[in-house]
Order: sequence, then structure tokens, then C-alpha cells
Amino acid sequence: MSTMSSSTGASSKKALPTIARLSTRDATFEQRLNALLDWEGVSDNAVQTRVDEILADVKQRGDAAVIDATNRFDRLSVDSMQALCLTPERLKQAFENLPGEQREALASAAERIRLYHERQKPGSWQYEEADGTVLGQKVTPLDRAGIYVPGGKAAYPSSVLMNAIPAHVAGVREIVMVVPTPDGVVNELVLAAAHLAGVDHVFTIGGAQAIAAMAYGTQTVPRVDKIVGPGNIYVATAKRAVFGQVGIDMIAGPSEILVVSDGRTDPDWLAMDLFSQAEHDEDAQAILVSWDIEHLNAVQEAIERLLPTLEREAIVRESLGQRGALILCEDKVDAISLINRIAPEHLELSVDAPESWLDDVRHAGAIFMGRYTAEALGDYCAGPNHVLPTSGTARFSSPLGVYDFQKRSSIINCSREGASTLGKVASVLARGESLTAHARSAEYRIEK
Amino acid sequence: MSTMSSSTGASSKKALPTIARLSTRDATFEQRLNALLDWEGVSDNAVQTRVDEILADVKQRGDAAVIDATNRFDRLSVDSMQALCLTPERLKQAFENLPGEQREALASAAERIRLYHERQKPGSWQYEEADGTVLGQKVTPLDRAGIYVPGGKAAYPSSVLMNAIPAHVAGVREIVMVVPTPDGVVNELVLAAAHLAGVDHVFTIGGAQAIAAMAYGTQTVPRVDKIVGPGNIYVATAKRAVFGQVGIDMIAGPSEILVVSDGRTDPDWLAMDLFSQAEHDEDAQAILVSWDIEHLNAVQEAIERLLPTLEREAIVRESLGQRGALILCEDKVDAISLINRIAPEHLELSVDAPESWLDDVRHAGAIFMGRYTAEALGDYCAGPNHVLPTSGTARFSSPLGVYDFQKRSSIINCSREGASTLGKVASVLARGESLTAHARSAEYRIEK
Repeated sequence: MSTMSSSTGASSKKALPTIARLSTRDATFEQRLNALLDWEGVSDNAVQTRVDEILADVKQRGDAAVIDATNRFDRLSVDSMQALCLTPERLKQAFENLPGEQREALASAAERIRLYHERQKPGSWQYEEADGTVLGQKVTPLDRAGIYVPGGKAAYPSSVLMNAIPAHVAGVREIVMVVPTPDGVVNELVLAAAHLAGVDHVFTIGGAQAIAAMAYGTQTVPRVDKIVGPGNIYVATAKRAVFGQVGIDMIAGPSEILVVSDGRTDPDWLAMDLFSQAEHDEDAQAILVSWDIEHLNAVQEAIERLLPTLEREAIVRESLGQRGALILCEDKVDAISLINRIAPEHLELSVDAPESWLDDVRHAGAIFMGRYTAEALGDYCAGPNHVLPTSGTARFSSPLGVYDFQKRSSIINCSREGASTLGKVASVLARGESLTAHARSAEYRIEK
Repeated sequence: MSTMSSSTGASSKKALPTIARLSTRDATFEQRLNALLDWEGVSDNAVQTRVDEILADVKQRGDAAVIDATNRFDRLSVDSMQALCLTPERLKQAFENLPGEQREALASAAERIRLYHERQKPGSWQYEEADGTVLGQKVTPLDRAGIYVPGGKAAYPSSVLMNAIPAHVAGVREIVMVVPTPDGVVNELVLAAAHLAGVDHVFTIGGAQAIAAMAYGTQTVPRVDKIVGPGNIYVATAKRAVFGQVGIDMIAGPSEILVVSDGRTDPDWLAMDLFSQAEHDEDAQAILVSWDIEHLNAVQEAIERLLPTLEREAIVRESLGQRGALILCEDKVDAISLINRIAPEHLELSVDAPESWLDDVRHAGAIFMGRYTAEALGDYCAGPNHVLPTSGTARFSSPLGVYDFQKRSSIINCSREGASTLGKVASVLARGESLTAHARSAEYRIEK
């Protein structure tokens, strides 16, 4: 739940306003902005305890524990892991059976995502010094990656592409995917996406039991080196708990967008861009900034007019009412200062010459430049990843990428001469730290 | 505490053997190796509660809470933050007052570390597609980094260089360092290293209160975007708690080395290399692997003979006895399989033609190649970072580097034509996910 519910509720009438209006000139602006942005995930002891139990059970009993939990939480009645595995042939079949338009759209998106991520591949490098000493860095893919895909209504094939393709491009040897099938409901688009993305094994399991199975390994599920992908509070809690045993991606907060408009983009377009963020869930955040008050009024009018035409009207209304805002700022400089203050997951620069803004934007997960670059294009098929740092964490983290599925090893190869020179320096510093075995180990390599 | 204490204790006589002998041929090898490698940090509820209290106090009271905690835990009696700040001039003075030999060694190490890390700087990139759409990735340094440096006996100037120089090379605008001064004892080498590394502010605070101050900001201590550096259990627990608010580096386990020898390196050198790891602390791990049993015997003899000559004999004896091992393997292939199984923090390839091993080594934090490349050289001055993934986490993580102080933003700039083409794909996929506001936002950009 958003922490905004109470503060907004306290400061306004019962019914939520369609969307809050703020101005950077207001004396209370900083305070209102902080309240709007404030977000802390629920930390619930009951969830923690339940997750700890499931993790311990899977660690101890392996497959049997996974089967029990799956039957219970997903309301199935299987008696072996066999019934929870999907073959590569099954994935291929899902892809081939899709309607032609969906098949082509999915393949086109996968291809574009692959091309973009190919550019992220770093190379190993080495250099040799005058005395023959070689230093360098070796880049190696992970042996095995695990992709968590939520089941039910939040099952997004685009997420399968965005999580698995970078792993595949990185050269990961084996990609394992888990996706729960509550009540036995399988999402064919998700399986088709797994086929396209190069997933090796799919297990139809979910929740903390799936995270445990991938982190510890079971008789059937191979232990992975890193787990990525979104999930509910049980999944997030389990990921946090196994962090260290395996790598994990960031634990994501609700999705958000900051749109900056110079007043010259069609208000209907901007309203729909805000809706596309808000329709994710009630906690999603959509903010528009402009220095043109008439334009903000026009966008607000478009919002009111278009809201009733939305399939997810209720969710959007709640999201915009609780966490959305139209913010009046002074000028471009003021807008840039807001961008860097908020460090948004998605930044839409709906302005002329967006290139001229780029140098000044320091913190944003993805930057959508110009009036034509709707965020939705990036969500599906532009190429860059849609897994992005949320809640201001773009200050210090990056989009999911090929680099998340590789790691580096330092290379040091000292020549006899190089070791002698370095040995003298190391000896002095080691003795300064009272680590005399370090010093003596270095001194053995000093030429007499 | 090492979890090995009990298992080793149970399976052998009361007095620890100097070092365990294993063979990959033993039926129980896998089991014994697992017991040897097994490591879990203590998770103590009392520590957690104490840390939570300190974090909450600093978040609420800022400087006042930091001063109270510092007076209490470091046995000081200051009444303002002024007394806990060191100026750049003070750091410079510490450097200039060092004995010449130490000053030169420190400067030489700093210079080499800087040169190596300069090579890690990634560039931003962009590419343009046929229809004019531009995609890319922009690399930006963090605004502010916080470096934690332990006080007292574990205060290592080399750690200051290794943590702060990558941040400086990355282009971080402001580098904040904290180092406690228990009983008012200041380590001049640490301050000198801070001067060389480009640290902007030093606060003489430590523990959970220092982590809280950097994560939340106080009236005096600026809020940072990422906190790196080693610390005790209070510091590690506090870092884990503020993760998400700020970035953190890995929470390190005990340091370890795996040495592989082909039998042709001087046994005394190898014994000292193992000691240099073991002298860090009782939980440190030093393992030697060779296919030459006579050589292993000779190294064991050297260990017994040299042990009494060590300043830190007691620590080394405990470390080798509880967590060390000399392992007999079959051949090179068997040794490589052990390397990848263990994924060591430090790997020393004390063999002929170590280059020929490199392609097969998939998991290691740093690889020290050849008989001359003692790990100690890398600890201080070879150039690569000495902050490395421990406890097998080299399977999925990397040495600390420039990349830890930068983040990426995706760039998407669709041309009118590009948006139209992508809009059609996005529309189909969004409707497949029942996200119709996404679809409509994309459809607005399709040319009629």
C-alpha cells in the first residue's frame, strides 16, 4: 500500500481528486513532493516467517517440498516434478500455435531486444607493462541463470523477453525459468516468449518455493547462480533471503514515470502516456511537469475526458488520485532539477530538441526522447530493457542488462622483474599494516 | 565464528592438525570439501535490534544521535560534529608527515591502482537505425559515494585506496569517508591514503551510526548514493538494512585463497603465500592444490618449520587448522574442476604457462598467474582491486570497480517513422497483455 493514502486522505476531501496539482513555487512544494514520492515496501513479520519456513523445507526436502507447496498454493494435485516440467518442444509448440499477428509481433520484439543487448557485451582486456607484467580483466558469463515469471493476471510475455534475452546474449550456459500455473492455467504467450528468448528449462512452480528451488537446487531443479524477475511480496522476501547464496536483481518498487512537456505535445497523447503507467497498479506513479500552465490545464481536461474510456479506469483513477501529479515548474532548468531530484524509472522528454537535455540529466532509468517516443514503445519492442531501477534508485543503479549475467575476474601476471619492483612496495605497505606474512611473501619475490 | 569449528572438532582429536590433507580420490572428498567451504555469517537478533535502534535514532535526530553514539561506542566526549570532521588540509598533512619510504610506497600504489582502474571506464554509446530512430546507453557517475573504513587494528590504508580510487576515477562528484577513532586514536596512514585517493570529506565516526548518517544524511554528513567498504557485524547489518535507500557493495565473508601448484614452486614461497591469507583472521581460508604428493609433503614441512617464525602465529595456526587444506588432485583437469567448484576469491596459479589455464577458469575474483605473482602484490600495489567476491560468490559477482560507482540510463529517441513501425508491434503485444492504455498510447504514434 502506498504511504500516500493516509497523508492525501488527511489533507483533502474523502473522494480523491483526479490528480494533484503542484507548483515548484509553493512554499510547501518540497514537503508535498516528498510525501508524493515517499514509498516503503511493507515489511511483514508473518510473511517473513512463512517464507523462512518454505525456504527451510525446500532446502531440506527438495522436490517433495516443492510439490507440496505447489499443490497447496496453486491448487494443483500433482505427485511428481515430472508434471511440473515443460519441454522445449512444448515451448516451441506454444510459439507456433500463436495467431500470426502475435507471433510476428513477439518475434520482432525479441529480435530488437537482442540487437540492442548485443551492444552491451563488454570485452575482456589485458595490457602489458614495460617490465613484462600483464594486467587485465576477464569477462565470463554465469553458468546458470534463473528467471522468475509471475503467473495469473500479471504474467507478461514481454517480461520473459526482457529478463531472459540479456542472459542469453551474455552467454549463460543454462537458463531456467519458473512460472506458476495457479489452477493449472498456462499462459501460451509466456511459453512462446520463453521459446524465443532461449530458455532451456521451464518449471511451472512459483512463490517462495520456486525461489528456494533455484537458490538451493533440488533433485530436479538445478541450482542457479543468479535469480532475476519480478514477483509478489513472498517472492521478493524470498529473493532477499537467498541473496548471498545466489545473486539477485534489484527488488523493485511500484513502476513510475516522469513526463516533461514543453507544452507542444498533444494533451491527449500525454494523458494516455500517464494512463499507461497508472494502469499497472494502484501504487504506480505518473507525474507530468511543464512550465506552461495552460498546457497543464489542457492535459487535466484530457485526463478527465479520457478516463471513462479506459478498461482499467478504476486502477488508473486510484493511482492518479493517490500518487499522480501535474507539476508547474519555472523553466527548463527547474525541470531538470526536478528530474535529478526524482531520479525517475521512466523519463519522457516530450520536448523540442530533447538531445539538448541529455547532458544535464544525471539520474533516470530510461530516457524516452521526443514526442513520438511513448514509454509503451520501450516497454515492448524498442530494444532497451524494461526492467529499470524504481523509487529513486536510478541514483545508483542501472537497467537490467547483459552485464547482470556476467562477472569479471582480475588478471595479474607479474614478470620476474615486475614482481621484484612491486615486492618492495608491497613489503613497505604490508609492514605498515603489521601484516608481516604478507610482507615476507612479497619479499621472497624480490631479486637479490 | 566458522561453522567448521564443530565439524572438525568432532572428527579429529582435540588439538587441531596443522593443516588438513585431502585427496580428490577419497570417497568422502566431496563431503569433506563441502564442510571445509561451508560458511554462514552469524545472524543475531540482538545485533539486529541494536542496529535498528541506532538507525532510527540517527534518522530522527541526525547529528545529535551520531554524537551520542560516537561518544558512547568510541569512548569520546565531543559536543559537536565539528570535532568529528577532518579537513582536506589535515589529510594532506598526514601524507606529508609520513616517513619517506611509506610516502613513496603509498603514492606508487595509488598511482598503479589509478592506472588500472582508468581502463575500466566504459563509454556511453548510441546507434541510429535506418528510419532515424536512435538507441543508446548513457553512463553517469554517482553524485556521492560513502567509503566506510574500519578503525583500530583493522584500519588498512590499502583499503582506503582500493575503495576510494575507483570512485574517483568513475567521476563521483563527492567522496565521503568515515573512519572511527576509538579512544581518539587516529591512523595517519589511513588519512594519508584518503588524501591520495581524492576523498573530499572525512568524518571520524563508525559503526551503524556512520552507516545511518551516510544513508539518510544529517545536518553535517551529506546523504550518499552508495556505501562501500568492510566493517564489523554492526556495520554489515546496518548496510544490509539501508540497502535500497542507498546502494551497497557485497557483504563480504572471510577472505580466502586457492593456490594451485605444479610442484615446481619453492615450498617456502607457497607456505608463506598460504600464511599471508591465514594471518588475516581465524576464519580466513587457505587451500593448496597439487597433483604432486611429494610437493604437498614438502609444503607441509615448510608450514611446520616456518609457522613458529610468524608474528601472527596463533591466528595462522587457528585458521589453517580449522579451514585450511592441502588437496591432492589427479591432474590439471581435476585442478581446474576444483577451481570452478570453489570459485575462490583469490586464485594463485603457481604453474608453468599459466596463460594456458585462463580459458578454462570460469569463476575466480582475481587470478594471480605464475610463481612470481604472490597474492600480496595484488593486495597492495599491482593495480587491480583487492575488494573481491568471497565464499563462492565469484560465481556471480565481480571485483569492486569503476562500474560500481557509475550507472547506466537507456536512451530511446524514436523518429516519426520509427514510432509508427514500433507502435504497431507494441499495440499487438500490449493488447495481448490486456494493457490497453499502453496500446492506445502507442497507437497515437502510428501514422494514418
